[in-house]
Amino acid sequence: MLFAGSASLQEQLVQAIEAAPTSVSPMQAVSAALDVAAALGQHRDYSQQRQSVINANAELRERELIKLASLSAALADGRRRRGVPEPDASLAAETGIVVLRVAFEHWVSEPYSADLSQNMREALDRLKTITTAR
Amino acid sequence: MLFAGSASLQEQLVQAIEAAPTSVSPMQAVSAALDVAAALGQHRDYSQQRQSVINANAELRERELIKLASLSAALADGRRRRGVPEPDASLAAETGIVVLRVAFEHWVSEPYSADLSQNMREALDRLKTITTAR
Repeated sequence: MLFAGSASLQEQLVQAIEAAPTSVSPMQAVSAALDVAAALGQHRDYSQQRQSVINANAELRERELIKLASLSAALADGRRRRGVPEPDASLAAETGIVVLRVAFEHWVSEPYSADLSQNMREALDRLKTITTAR
Repeated sequence: MLFAGSASLQEQLVQAIEAAPTSVSPMQAVSAALDVAAALGQHRDYSQQRQSVINANAELRERELIKLASLSAALADGRRRRGVPEPDASLAAETGIVVLRVAFEHWVSEPYSADLSQNMREALDRLKTITTAR
């Protein structure tokens, strides 16, 4: 998992996404949850060590995929409970996890990059740009 | 895997993404590859049967996650080889896989939905909408 204590991470993210008002867009609600994740993942040295162990081990990489899929399903569930229809709830949750992972990988591999929250905001901005580019 | 013959699917998608001109946006290149995937997955009855077998078996679900992660990495690679920088290449590839999976799940679960290509285009449109909503 990206961070230690993944069960607790999942609970906290689901709480954050359920706390987001129904008036915000599904992607904004996911962003709010990602901010919570970013706040939990500020120990870069530890995260780097953990990530190199995971990268070197196929079974750990698989386990990480499974945990991220479960996190994504929990986020989509949280948003559906607030009345967000499909496919929006799943698209926002799964895309949010993509942003989280891409930002996290950049953050751990670039020693001089900004903090994790900033990396996530930048990844989300890039996603907006490439999704709407013609 | 969503479709039979996943090694061949991956090769065909990578060919499609490498064939996309450098002038198109990373997301457009991924869309072109998704159209190839959609054309390969038009046998709904077979896809439905296959998907229910996968859904009922944790190990098969895990294997599917691994294959999709590998497909996503291959698509990002294909785009990087055409000069697309990070994080755009990874964001486009991983988000493309999200669109593919959400569209596929809708397509197999809704007997009266349009064809898979149409489901993918709709999912991509919804993604644009929720990504840019404020």
